Amino acid sequence: MAHAGGPGARKDILERLDSGEVVVGDGSFLITLEKRGYVKAGLWTPEAVVDHPDAVRQLHIEFLRAGSNVMQTFTFAASEDNMESKWKAVNAAACDLAREVAGKGDALVAGGICQTSVYKHHKDEATVKKLFQLQLEVFTKKNVDFLITEYFEHAEEAIWAVEVLKESGKPLAATMCIGPDGDMCGVTPGECAVKLVKAGAAIVGVNCRFGPSTSLKTMRLMKEGLQAAGLKAHLMVQSLGFHTPDCGKGGFVDLPEYPFGLEPRVATRWDIQKYAREAYNLGIRYIGRCCGFEPYHIRAIAEELAPERGFLPPASDKHGSWGSSLNMHTKPWIRARARREYWENLLPPSGRPFCPSLSQLDA
Amino acid sequence: MAHAGGPGARKDILERLDSGEVVVGDGSFLITLEKRGYVKAGLWTPEAVVDHPDAVRQLHIEFLRAGSNVMQTFTFAASEDNMESKWKAVNAAACDLAREVAGKGDALVAGGICQTSVYKHHKDEATVKKLFQLQLEVFTKKNVDFLITEYFEHAEEAIWAVEVLKESGKPLAATMCIGPDGDMCGVTPGECAVKLVKAGAAIVGVNCRFGPSTSLKTMRLMKEGLQAAGLKAHLMVQSLGFHTPDCGKGGFVDLPEYPFGLEPRVATRWDIQKYAREAYNLGIRYIGRCCGFEPYHIRAIAEELAPERGFLPPASDKHGSWGSSLNMHTKPWIRARARREYWENLLPPSGRPFCPSLSQLDA
Amino acid sequence: MAHAGGPGARKDILERLDSGEVVVGDGSFLITLEKRGYVKAGLWTPEAVVDHPDAVRQLHIEFLRAGSNVMQTFTFAASEDNMESKWKAVNAAACDLAREVAGKGDALVAGGICQTSVYKHHKDEATVKKLFQLQLEVFTKKNVDFLITEYFEHAEEAIWAVEVLKESGKPLAATMCIGPDGDMCGVTPGECAVKLVKAGAAIVGVNCRFGPSTSLKTMRLMKEGLQAAGLKAHLMVQSLGFHTPDCGKGGFVDLPEYPFGLEPRVATRWDIQKYAREAYNLGIRYIGRCCGFEPYHIRAIAEELAPERGFLPPASDKHGSWGSSLNMHTKPWIRARARREYWENLLPPSGRPFCPSLSQLDA
Amino acid sequence: MAHAGGPGARKDILERLDSGEVVVGDGSFLITLEKRGYVKAGLWTPEAVVDHPDAVRQLHIEFLRAGSNVMQTFTFAASEDNMESKWKAVNAAACDLAREVAGKGDALVAGGICQTSVYKHHKDEATVKKLFQLQLEVFTKKNVDFLITEYFEHAEEAIWAVEVLKESGKPLAATMCIGPDGDMCGVTPGECAVKLVKAGAAIVGVNCRFGPSTSLKTMRLMKEGLQAAGLKAHLMVQSLGFHTPDCGKGGFVDLPEYPFGLEPRVATRWDIQKYAREAYNLGIRYIGRCCGFEPYHIRAIAEELAPERGFLPPASDKHGSWGSSLNMHTKPWIRARARREYWENLLPPSGRPFCPSLSQLDA
Repeated sequence: MAHAGGPGARKDILERLDSGEVVVGDGSFLITLEKRGYVKAGLWTPEAVVDHPDAVRQLHIEFLRAGSNVMQTFTFAASEDNMESKWKAVNAAACDLAREVAGKGDALVAGGICQTSVYKHHKDEATVKKLFQLQLEVFTKKNVDFLITEYFEHAEEAIWAVEVLKESGKPLAATMCIGPDGDMCGVTPGECAVKLVKAGAAIVGVNCRFGPSTSLKTMRLMKEGLQAAGLKAHLMVQSLGFHTPDCGKGGFVDLPEYPFGLEPRVATRWDIQKYAREAYNLGIRYIGRCCGFEPYHIRAIAEELAPERGFLPPASDKHGSWGSSLNMHTKPWIRARARREYWENLLPPSGRPFCPSLSQLDA
Repeated sequence: MAHAGGPGARKDILERLDSGEVVVGDGSFLITLEKRGYVKAGLWTPEAVVDHPDAVRQLHIEFLRAGSNVMQTFTFAASEDNMESKWKAVNAAACDLAREVAGKGDALVAGGICQTSVYKHHKDEATVKKLFQLQLEVFTKKNVDFLITEYFEHAEEAIWAVEVLKESGKPLAATMCIGPDGDMCGVTPGECAVKLVKAGAAIVGVNCRFGPSTSLKTMRLMKEGLQAAGLKAHLMVQSLGFHTPDCGKGGFVDLPEYPFGLEPRVATRWDIQKYAREAYNLGIRYIGRCCGFEPYHIRAIAEELAPERGFLPPASDKHGSWGSSLNMHTKPWIRARARREYWENLLPPSGRPFCPSLSQLDA
Repeated sequence: MAHAGGPGARKDILERLDSGEVVVGDGSFLITLEKRGYVKAGLWTPEAVVDHPDAVRQLHIEFLRAGSNVMQTFTFAASEDNMESKWKAVNAAACDLAREVAGKGDALVAGGICQTSVYKHHKDEATVKKLFQLQLEVFTKKNVDFLITEYFEHAEEAIWAVEVLKESGKPLAATMCIGPDGDMCGVTPGECAVKLVKAGAAIVGVNCRFGPSTSLKTMRLMKEGLQAAGLKAHLMVQSLGFHTPDCGKGGFVDLPEYPFGLEPRVATRWDIQKYAREAYNLGIRYIGRCCGFEPYHIRAIAEELAPERGFLPPASDKHGSWGSSLNMHTKPWIRARARREYWENLLPPSGRPFCPSLSQLDA
Repeated sequence: MAHAGGPGARKDILERLDSGEVVVGDGSFLITLEKRGYVKAGLWTPEAVVDHPDAVRQLHIEFLRAGSNVMQTFTFAASEDNMESKWKAVNAAACDLAREVAGKGDALVAGGICQTSVYKHHKDEATVKKLFQLQLEVFTKKNVDFLITEYFEHAEEAIWAVEVLKESGKPLAATMCIGPDGDMCGVTPGECAVKLVKAGAAIVGVNCRFGPSTSLKTMRLMKEGLQAAGLKAHLMVQSLGFHTPDCGKGGFVDLPEYPFGLEPRVATRWDIQKYAREAYNLGIRYIGRCCGFEPYHIRAIAEELAPERGFLPPASDKHGSWGSSLNMHTKPWIRARARREYWENLLPPSGRPFCPSLSQLDA
C-alpha cells in the first residue's frame, strides 16, 4: 500500500507526460450518475458527494479499476453561484472521495473548475475570478495533485480561470468544450490553445459537448495552432461517449434528443479503442472522457494502449480483449465473434427503423 | 428499521399481486456489471457477489431507489455445473446482499434459478433436478421470500425447475426467455404458460432475450393461452432494455452485435414508460426487466405507474417527470423540451449514418 | 417480319406456360408515365393512349426490348364508370398500340381489366359485370391473345370478372392486389387462388400494391392453397418495383409517401434479379411487374433467367451482365465493381440521414 | 409553326438571362436512357441518336413538355477519341433531333461539349483543342443557338474548351463537374468561375457529379469568387437528381453504388422544388439538371418557379401542384395528402432497414 499515504509517493502529472507516458483520464459522472439516480438533469449539480457518497465512491472505483490515472473531483458546477452555501462542503467532500480512491491505485487527484453561470450575463472579471478563487482555496487546502479547467465555451473566461489557478503553483490542464468551429465568439481552436498556453496552462485540450471524431478534429486544429505559434504543450482529449457527427457549434446540448434520448448514440467499446488509437497517433497522451463514458469505455482506452503502457487495467480480468471471452460459447456462431476483425468491422444497427440516423438542428 | 429482521414484516408477493398492486421488478445485473467491470461476458457468472460485494450492493441499492419491490439474488448461472465448488458461497452471499438491501425499503427477496448447461447435452432429469435442489437448499436456508425460474429456453426444463422449487412451499414465478415463436422445441407461448401453471407456478411470464415490444407480444400469447385453458395466474414481464424487432427465435444472442455492440439499441426512459403502460394495460402486474435495464429504466416504470401505485420512488427526487427539470435551463430551446409531448414524439437518431437500422441474421 | 401479321404466328400463353417456358411480363405504365408527364396521379386514367400515343408506344417498345413477352393493353381504369364516353376509344387504341409493338417481337397482347369504382359502393353484380362485358367486347373485337384481371382487392369482384371474361374462350390470368393478409374481407391468399381457379382462371397470382419480397410471400400462400385443394394452375407474380416491408393490408397506397415520395424505395436491378430467381424457384413462370418497374427492371428479369430461357433480350446489348461494362473504366476502383459479388452484396444507402428507413402507418 | 424555321425567331439565351427570365434546362439523358435500354453504362456514348432516334426524340419531347427552354444536343462523349469515325454522324443527328423538338416549343438548341479522354494522359493542348474544334464545326454547320461546355473536372481543360468555342461567336455557357472542394488540381470554385469568365464564358456554373445541396454550395462559392473579382456573369446550375451528402471531391462516381445502385438516392419532386427555389434565391437563373433528372423533376423546377415565369409547363396538365390531384381520392387518408405542408415535411423512408443511410468511400 505504498500509495495510500498521499500524492507525494507517485509521479506527478507533468513528470508522466514529460516522460511520454499515456495518462488515462476518468469517465462520465453527471450523465452516469443521472442514470444511476443521483444527479438531476438540467441542474447537473454534484450534491451527491455529500448526500450519497457511496454511489460516487463506487463510480470512482470503477474508473480506477478500468485504468484511470486521474480521479477528477466531482465538482462540476460546484461553485457558489450554482450551489449557494452548499458549495464549500461539496468541494471538500469531493476532494476527500477522490483522494480516498486514488490512494487505492496509481492515480492522481485533479481539482476541476468549470465555467460560471454569471459570466454570460455580466462578464465581470472580478466576480468570475472570485468564484474560481473560492474553489481553488478548497483544492489547495485539500492538496489536490493538479488542476483542470473544464467545460469552458468562451476562451476569455477560460483564460481568467487559468490566470487564477496558476497562482496555486500546481500543474494546470486547461480544456474547453468547443468543436472545430471554435468558441462561442469565434475564437478558433488553434487560437484558444495558444491563448491558454500563453496564460499558463501546461496541458491543453477539449472535453465534453462533442463525440470522439469531432473532438479529435478539434484537437488537430489545436495542435496545428500551437505548432504554428511555436509553442509546446501537452495535449489532452476528453470526448463525449456519444457519436455526434450532426452537431453544430453548440455541441450535443443542441441536439433535439439531449439529454434524455441520447441512448442510440452511445459509443461501443470498439469505437473507443479506435478513438484512443487515433488520439495517440495524433500525439495526445492524456486521453479520457466526458459525458457518456462508462467504466468499460475507459477500460477500452486502457486496453487499446496496453502495448504502449505495458500493462492492462484491473478490470480487464473481466474482459477478454477483442471479444476473446466468447471463444468458449456453446453456440458456434457466437464463438465466431471472438476475434478482432469481427468487432472492428461491425456496423451496429439501432433496432429503430422508424428513426432517422442524424438529427436536424433547429435554426 | 422494522423491515430489517426478515420478510415476515411485509406483504408477500402473492398478497401484493392478489390485491392488484403493481410490483416493480429490478434491473439488469449481468450486462450492467459487465460494463462496470465486474462480470465477464461469455461466462456470465456472478462471482462478483463474493469478490466485489460493494459493487453488487450498490447496484441493488440503485434499483431499490428506482422503485424496485424485488431484489433478485444475483445467482444467474450460479449452479454447480457452471461454477464448481464456488457455487455455494456465491448463492449464500447473493442472498445476504439482496436481503440487506431489501431491508432498506419495501422490497422482497427472490431467489433466482436458471437453466442448466447440462440439459442440452444430456436431458437427464435427475441430474438437472439435482442441480436445482442444491441451489434451493441455499435459498431455503437463507429464507428468500419467493422464487423465480428464469432464462429457460425449453419448456421441459422449466417444468422440472418448477417441480423442484414448488416443494419449498414458497410462492413461485416461472419465466422463460422465449419470444412469440415459443420455445426451442416449438412449444408455443400459450402452451408454455399453461404447462408452467399446471406444474405449480403462481406467476408466469417471460424475461430476457427480447425487447419490450416483442416481449409484450409473447405475453399476449401467454395470456390468451391461459384464458383458452381456463387457467388463472399472475402475469410477469421482464423485457430486455434493448430494441430487438429483428430478432429470430433465439433472441438477442443471435444478433450479430451481441454482446459488445448493442449500444444503439438501448431503450430510452420514454420507451420504457410506454412499455410499462402497455404491460399494465395488458393486465400484467409484475413488471421488470432483464439485460440492459439500468436503474433509470426501472425508475421509468415506477414513474409511469405512479398514478396507479400512489407514490414515486426515492430516485425521482433526481428526476423531473417528462423532462420537467429542464424548465429552468438558460437556453430557451432546451427549456422547450420540458414537456411530455416532446419526449413522447422524439425519434432518437443513432448518430451512425453508416450503420443500418436492423440486423440481418446469419442462416 | 413473320410476326407482324397477327397472334396466330406465335405460341399462345398457355402453350408457353404448359411447356415450362418462362414468360416475362411487362412493366409499369401508370407511375412511369406519370413521371414522364402523361398520366395524372390520383385519377390514374390512360387517356394518353389517345392523346399521346407516341409516348405510350415508346414505353411498350422499351419493355419489348427489355424482354417482355406480353404487351398488356394500357387500359387501367378504362371502364365507363371512370372515363365516361371516352372509355371505348381508349380501349380500342390501347389494343392497337399493344398489337403494333407486340408484332415487332415475340410478345402476346393481353387485355387488362381492373376492379370497378362502383363495386365498393353498390356491390351490384349486374352493374359490375356489365362494365366488364363492355370492355371485353372491345378486347374481343381487337382479338387480344389473352385476358388479365388485375388490381382486384376483393375476391368476390375478381370472381365476377373471371366469370365474365371466361365466356370469351380466351386464356385467362386472374390476379389480385393483395398481400399475405388476403383480400379486404379477410379471404386468405390461398382461398383467393382456389376460388379464382375454380371460377375459370388458368393462371393466378398477384400484381401491384406490394414489393418483391411481400408479393412472393403471398404467392407462396397461394401455391400452398392450391396444393391443399388439389388444384393446378399456372402462377404469375407482378410485384411493385418498390420495397414495402412496412406495408399493412392495404399495401403501398397507405404508406405516407404514396404516391409522390416513393423514390427511396425503388428496387435496384440486382434486387429484381433476386426477385426473379426466387419467383422461379417457387415455381412461378409468369414473372412481371407493376408500378415502379422500369424497363431496366424487366431486363433484369430477362437477364437473371437467360440461362433458363436460352437467350438475352435485345436491350442487353446496352447492359453488361453484373456490371461487366465497367471493366474498361479509367478509374481502377470503378473497374473493381465489374463483378457479381460486388453488386449482390451492395447495401445501397439512401443519402438521406434525416429520414427513417421504415414508415409508421396511420392507425 | 412560326418557330420551326430556326432560332432567329425566338429570344436567344443571353437576351433571356439579361432580361431576368428564368431559363429551365433539360434533364438527364445518359442515366435515363440507360434505364430505358439505349445507353451502355461505363461507355456512356450516345450512339442512340443514330440507332434509336425515336427513343431520344421522345425524351427530348418529355423535357420540352416538362418546361425546358433548352434542348441540349445529346453529344456527351461524342468526340473522335471516344467514338472513332461514328462521332460525326452522331453529332449531326443529335443536332437535328434537338432542333426538331425545340421547334415544337419555346426552346433553344445548345451544343454540348465535354472533357476529352486524352487530356488526363497527355495534357496536350493542341490535340485536345483539335477535338473540340471538330465538334464545333458540326455545331456551327447545324447552327445551334448556343454552346455549353460540360463535365469538365479540370479548370485548365475547361478553359481550353472556352477558348475554342468562343471563336464561333455564339453565346457560351461554361460548366464544370466540381464540388465545393474545387477541381482535381485544387482550383477552387471561385477561381474556376473567374478563369472561365475571363476566358470568355457569359454563363458559368456546375453540372453533374453532385446532388442538389452540394451543387448549390459550389454555386455560392462561384458567385462569391466572381463578386470578389468584380466580374459579372450569369449563373447556371445543373445538379444531379441524386442526394450525395457523403460525396468526396470526385463526386458520385466514387460512391460505391455508382452507377447501378443509386435508386434510394433519387430526389423527390419536392426536393427539386426546394432546390429550384434556393437556386433562384441565390441569383441563379439557368436552372437545370444532370444525371438522374427525370422529366417530372424538370416539371418540378417549372412549377416552383411558375409564379416568377408567369406560366406552367404543358406537362402540368397531368400534375396538380403540391399533390392537389389527390383531393378526389376515395380514401380519406390519401385525400389528406393533397396539400403543400404534407409533402414539404415528408421524410421519405427507404424501405431498406438493412442498409445504411450514407456511404463510406474507399480511401
